[in-house]
Amino acid sequence: MQDAKQQQRSRGRGRESSFPMISVDEAIAMVLEEAEALPPVTMPLADVPMGSTLSADAVAPDPLPPFPASIMDGYAVVAADTAEASANGGCVLEVVARITAGVDAAAITVGPGQCAYITTGAKLPKGADAVVKVEDTQAMAGDASLMDADEKTVRILKGVAAGTSIRPIGSDIAQGEVVLTAGTRVTPAEVGLLATCGIATVTITPLPVVGIMSTGDELVEPGESISGGMIRDSNRATLLAFVKAQGATAVDLGIVRDVAGGLEEALKDALQRCDVVVTSGGVSMGEADLIKPLLEQMGTLHFGRICMKPGKPTTFATVPGEKKLVLAMPGNPVSCLVTSHLFCAPAMRRLSGQARHLCMHSQVQVVLAETLKLDPERPEYHRAVVTWDSSQNALLANSTGPQASCRLLSMRGSNALLCLPAASGVAAAGSLVTALLIGDIPPPSAPARCFHARAAGASAAEAQHGSHDHAHGASGVRTVMTVALLTVSDRASQGVYEDLSGPAMAKCLTAEDIQACIMEWCDVAKVDLILTSGGTGFGRRDLTPEAIAPLLQRHAPGIVHAIYQAGLKHTPLAVLSRPVAGTRGNTLVVTLPGSVKAVNENMTALVPLLPRIVNLLQGNEC
Amino acid sequence: MQDAKQQQRSRGRGRESSFPMISVDEAIAMVLEEAEALPPVTMPLADVPMGSTLSADAVAPDPLPPFPASIMDGYAVVAADTAEASANGGCVLEVVARITAGVDAAAITVGPGQCAYITTGAKLPKGADAVVKVEDTQAMAGDASLMDADEKTVRILKGVAAGTSIRPIGSDIAQGEVVLTAGTRVTPAEVGLLATCGIATVTITPLPVVGIMSTGDELVEPGESISGGMIRDSNRATLLAFVKAQGATAVDLGIVRDVAGGLEEALKDALQRCDVVVTSGGVSMGEADLIKPLLEQMGTLHFGRICMKPGKPTTFATVPGEKKLVLAMPGNPVSCLVTSHLFCAPAMRRLSGQARHLCMHSQVQVVLAETLKLDPERPEYHRAVVTWDSSQNALLANSTGPQASCRLLSMRGSNALLCLPAASGVAAAGSLVTALLIGDIPPPSAPARCFHARAAGASAAEAQHGSHDHAHGASGVRTVMTVALLTVSDRASQGVYEDLSGPAMAKCLTAEDIQACIMEWCDVAKVDLILTSGGTGFGRRDLTPEAIAPLLQRHAPGIVHAIYQAGLKHTPLAVLSRPVAGTRGNTLVVTLPGSVKAVNENMTALVPLLPRIVNLLQGNEC
Repeated sequence: MQDAKQQQRSRGRGRESSFPMISVDEAIAMVLEEAEALPPVTMPLADVPMGSTLSADAVAPDPLPPFPASIMDGYAVVAADTAEASANGGCVLEVVARITAGVDAAAITVGPGQCAYITTGAKLPKGADAVVKVEDTQAMAGDASLMDADEKTVRILKGVAAGTSIRPIGSDIAQGEVVLTAGTRVTPAEVGLLATCGIATVTITPLPVVGIMSTGDELVEPGESISGGMIRDSNRATLLAFVKAQGATAVDLGIVRDVAGGLEEALKDALQRCDVVVTSGGVSMGEADLIKPLLEQMGTLHFGRICMKPGKPTTFATVPGEKKLVLAMPGNPVSCLVTSHLFCAPAMRRLSGQARHLCMHSQVQVVLAETLKLDPERPEYHRAVVTWDSSQNALLANSTGPQASCRLLSMRGSNALLCLPAASGVAAAGSLVTALLIGDIPPPSAPARCFHARAAGASAAEAQHGSHDHAHGASGVRTVMTVALLTVSDRASQGVYEDLSGPAMAKCLTAEDIQACIMEWCDVAKVDLILTSGGTGFGRRDLTPEAIAPLLQRHAPGIVHAIYQAGLKHTPLAVLSRPVAGTRGNTLVVTLPGSVKAVNENMTALVPLLPRIVNLLQGNEC
Repeated sequence: MQDAKQQQRSRGRGRESSFPMISVDEAIAMVLEEAEALPPVTMPLADVPMGSTLSADAVAPDPLPPFPASIMDGYAVVAADTAEASANGGCVLEVVARITAGVDAAAITVGPGQCAYITTGAKLPKGADAVVKVEDTQAMAGDASLMDADEKTVRILKGVAAGTSIRPIGSDIAQGEVVLTAGTRVTPAEVGLLATCGIATVTITPLPVVGIMSTGDELVEPGESISGGMIRDSNRATLLAFVKAQGATAVDLGIVRDVAGGLEEALKDALQRCDVVVTSGGVSMGEADLIKPLLEQMGTLHFGRICMKPGKPTTFATVPGEKKLVLAMPGNPVSCLVTSHLFCAPAMRRLSGQARHLCMHSQVQVVLAETLKLDPERPEYHRAVVTWDSSQNALLANSTGPQASCRLLSMRGSNALLCLPAASGVAAAGSLVTALLIGDIPPPSAPARCFHARAAGASAAEAQHGSHDHAHGASGVRTVMTVALLTVSDRASQGVYEDLSGPAMAKCLTAEDIQACIMEWCDVAKVDLILTSGGTGFGRRDLTPEAIAPLLQRHAPGIVHAIYQAGLKHTPLAVLSRPVAGTRGNTLVVTLPGSVKAVNENMTALVPLLPRIVNLLQGNEC
């Protein structure tokens, strides 16, 4: 593993690093290429650590539910007995048993005219084929609102069909069904699934054992007093916490001084005990930085310089034998933590058996709350707090302040690394950048307000009004759109059917009328959206598309596609409409058919698209 | 705590629950109102659990850095000496010392004409007021690219101003500065900050001890065989994992049978040992459901019915004395886990000292990938997988499938609870709903932008090179096709975001440029395939289709259709692109959108078609 270049590096210290500068993406790819899933281990389900992965598919040994089970508290009945209960003010059945959960109903039979009280989840008795929920029954004696443990008869108020409120055998999970595939990451829901299937012992790929070592003659323990040129070692505490936060086992390897022999011995010893060793310090160009030459000598050094800020000297090596990974992070506290998020976290996920592409970071686009200066030479991983901004319906990123790599305060409270490109100038406030999520998105600062989703019908109806106030998502701009409606229909005006499809602002009969109206609205009134209805079929007087198409400056075939798709869900004859859609100036024009039903079907497809398009046409690009 | 209504409830079982139905928001507010921060404890920093909070402000006892420190590996100089170095081809200084990190520079003085070699983080010697980085220096003897440990003089190539590459005392953290305020949640970054300030012992509000109890005569342990009406207890395993996943201490309280006396004894014992007891089962209307009357008798029952699906019978009580919380969850496995996320997680955060508003859930707006039926009576917490959709720059939610409360499969892999309003009808695909995040957002499904040279992105990425060697199955002819790529994007060229969608062979901004380029490539270079990316949307400057369509001699609407179909598999907003495809001479031209993800999706549809088309265009009909 020694070549001329390496020998040169070990003879003296170059003024510039001789390691090629690679990109962050290349570096992550190299780490994931080298990291391999650890050998599987078998353990009781209760001991499985969250974040480990299953080494094999989990197969349900029996069906769930294992018997036909009641979904409700109520009465197990023969459905046919209740057929006319709803109409006749109820029917009275004899109560032959009380079946609570866990009772084996094998010995109990419900015959015609009989029923059995049954609780949720209990096993259905023989003969019964439905359950009437308790709310749909009435006691026969005493306080009719109460149930009596000794009741002999009950009044059924509502008839039920066979199968009502029953979960058949295997309806949740079939016998032999693969409930979880190999490689699935274990979370509480997966533990529950395994438990419910009776899989009490599992084989998993465990989380790695990660050793944490600090290097540097200048370091003292956090509890010690500092003097002279000494500083406190914060990286080790940070990294130990980082590893534990991922659920893995952290091994404290202490502070190792900058002496080549000591370091080598410490590393060799650590590699006996750990799957990964993460060091900090000793990787820059300083003359006491001994890690790189040592790693080159012990194994394969995959990279030693990354085009990023902070974290440029981050180093990655593997040591042969039982292949172990060494990540050598810079000594600056922020560089160390940022590079651990970027390289160590994916490596740990990969070692614990996650598929390579799932080892990457959560990645979203965020709106910058403030203008950030870019680094002209290196992509920067800028620490930020990302929150959901409900006023612009977008994730918003606030910088944590000055980003010097020694300033741990820039990590305080941060939940994201903004990926700022290497470029001159700035990323302006309001622009979108990629963010890697490294922590939870905090709750909304205003108290939760959960329920403002609306059914699709409501929005469609609103869009049919002249002015539409719609707050829209990713663009982050509140769109107020003006809508003009043009009804093209001689039949409507002749009273053949009511013109329900639009509270029209204009009604036109001839191609010339249509064109004049469209041009007026696009060029003078400058409305955002024109919807026409009628005149798109194959009738001799259907001229709407022919009138409008020549006026459009840009066609929108996708909207036509969406209209067909929406219509075809309801009738194959939807293809008999000949819609056109496109823009003139900043106005979107869409032709709709004449029938109310078809208009409603089409609007279901269009409404979700409109705010976004209009937003773009209004020039609110981001 | 006994009133007439409660006495009635304990006498017999009402057919309808007598508890008022409250909203989820009210229920969370009640839980947070009752939950109080646990008493603080003092412990070594290394033992502080992640997720606990600081009980007091953390104040820096001394400044950081504690001395003026070098930011670079280089030479500590008197700045005035170097003033004219840049202009005059450098100045030569005497090297009087070598100061590595940890060396106390107190005895070293740098005078005029002198300098000291210094490494990153080391203490600046007296007299020096700036550092020249090693890259801006040159050795005087031997191999000038190497540094010599014995060097007596060095050439400074670049002048520096006083203060360059120096961190003054206290520039990162001032003495007495509050680095973390009381109530701050501890994560690895906070541990690092405390360590760097020398705060090795901290007083925190710990995470709660949470007891987990299952109730029900029908339950057996996951490892036991089932028979009769028995089912396996999955809730306890799920909840124990859930509590551990939050970093808190979980106590397994086992299965308690549905006998009032046994339950009371078990609960009283549990409340001695735990801060919170979470039970599952025994809260619905079945007659063996004993939890609610018992809790009413033991303490204060705050709510017993919530307007939500699943989870309606969820119950919350406090028991006096050292106030303890009891959350009684429904027995259905999904109801149990959903309500634990909704009510137990915030309670645990509040007990561990987080500010009330920070105990709420992460909440974002997501676009529905599919139409979901609404429940007309109760708001539903619909389990979903939320991912980032880079083509529409929004979070996209896919349902986990049928949502029956017994079906644990609906929790599998879910990272969000969609808050669907109680309403008739549906929430249409493409509409926005609120989502509570209960897990990590997975990494991008397309191999991250980083990897677009590898894996699934390979086809797209390869096609982006000038020549593409593609062996294709069906035709049997090995087609070598020349591909030209045209990137249409002003945003990319302005550095607003990295132009990831293609290492372009050409970049055009105007329609004229685009047309000139297309004609050149079709008519002169005669490439087989031109792919463009960008400029197909509704933005005001999106002109690619308009520029290209008039140049095409034959249109290929089928390719446009294929593009839409491919896109619609991922998002209903795919129709917002306005692609054109067709031929000019023997060149096929296809316009693609600007986003990497959309390009990859489209290429999946196009790649299988391309060799055949190009083959035909080349005249190799077969």
